[in-house]
Amino acid sequence: MPILYHSPLTRSTRVITQLMMMDRLDAVEVRLVSVPRRDGSGHRDPANPHPEGKVPLLIGDDGAAIRESNAVMLYLDEYFGHPLGIAPGRPGRGTFLSWMCYYGGVVEPALALAIAGVSHPALTSTFRGMPEVEAQIAAGLGQAPFLMGARFTVADLIMASAFQWAASTFTLQSPVVRDWVARVTERVGGVPVNDYEQKAQARLAAAG
Amino acid sequence: MPILYHSPLTRSTRVITQLMMMDRLDAVEVRLVSVPRRDGSGHRDPANPHPEGKVPLLIGDDGAAIRESNAVMLYLDEYFGHPLGIAPGRPGRGTFLSWMCYYGGVVEPALALAIAGVSHPALTSTFRGMPEVEAQIAAGLGQAPFLMGARFTVADLIMASAFQWAASTFTLQSPVVRDWVARVTERVGGVPVNDYEQKAQARLAAAG
Repeated sequence: MPILYHSPLTRSTRVITQLMMMDRLDAVEVRLVSVPRRDGSGHRDPANPHPEGKVPLLIGDDGAAIRESNAVMLYLDEYFGHPLGIAPGRPGRGTFLSWMCYYGGVVEPALALAIAGVSHPALTSTFRGMPEVEAQIAAGLGQAPFLMGARFTVADLIMASAFQWAASTFTLQSPVVRDWVARVTERVGGVPVNDYEQKAQARLAAAG
Repeated sequence: MPILYHSPLTRSTRVITQLMMMDRLDAVEVRLVSVPRRDGSGHRDPANPHPEGKVPLLIGDDGAAIRESNAVMLYLDEYFGHPLGIAPGRPGRGTFLSWMCYYGGVVEPALALAIAGVSHPALTSTFRGMPEVEAQIAAGLGQAPFLMGARFTVADLIMASAFQWAASTFTLQSPVVRDWVARVTERVGGVPVNDYEQKAQARLAAAG
């Protein structure tokens, strides 16, 4: 059984959401760990085998450690037979991989730079900025409700998560993109992840 | 047949290298396009359908555009039966996905920030820095010659490419990592990619 090192209400919450939406949370062992938080709470947890003390970290069936949210989500989708993704060889597979990699390679850096207020010609040339990200999402959606068309996938989950976190510090300009984030939020609201996370937070606080 | 939008001696050179090492360059239609270069040469090419005029861009068999080098390389490895990667369900698959995503999500941002000389607490917290990247590679290698063990994969190709480009502006500290980059460079030297790229450059210059 894969083991997920998880800290409530962090980047790894997306993986809990994915598992709940696949109805496979009981097929993964979740180990709660602390991480340093922006508000100064939490700490690097010696029980977390991630080399930088981050989450998520997934230990696969072969015992190997898998880091990076997009890799973990691709692996779990594949492991459970692609309930929330596009399988290899199926139409849209390349687009699906593209969104999953675009999240890590462009969206996170561009958003982190925008929020930090950092601007540098070499960084802009490499990652572009949030206007290009919004344009890419709007073009990808076209008239469809989700990035892969009618079907919700983990590409929507991971891509929209960036804007859900950053809602207080970054405002989306495109109504099309805002509407898509709202659709994803509504779809994710179908599983009790917030309840799970509140209880996990309480368990972690009681233990630590 | 997939179509690769390629510009010589850029990030998309890795995809040409991959295709040559898989002996599948003839199974992909390569379309040469210009891109703006750091030295001021080149230009955004209207023939390139990438929304930001970058390379690589791959058009898959289903007609969909695939951006991000790691996504393109994952897709092509899968498309051709995993000659230079780890197939789904095989031991090491999670580790392989992890390296491919780690490249885009950490190595490129950390290296770009290091070369730009930009430092900011929020960015360091998100991406860490090159010492952590070197530590991750060294730990991943252990006593093995390549990241996935005895076998060379596109994880080596993409991960080492960052240090090959940056050799003039960034110096690796770890002898283990330097030796691995040298091994990857030697392995890549088994295909005539430099010769291909010189000729492609000349063709592109003659056309433009």
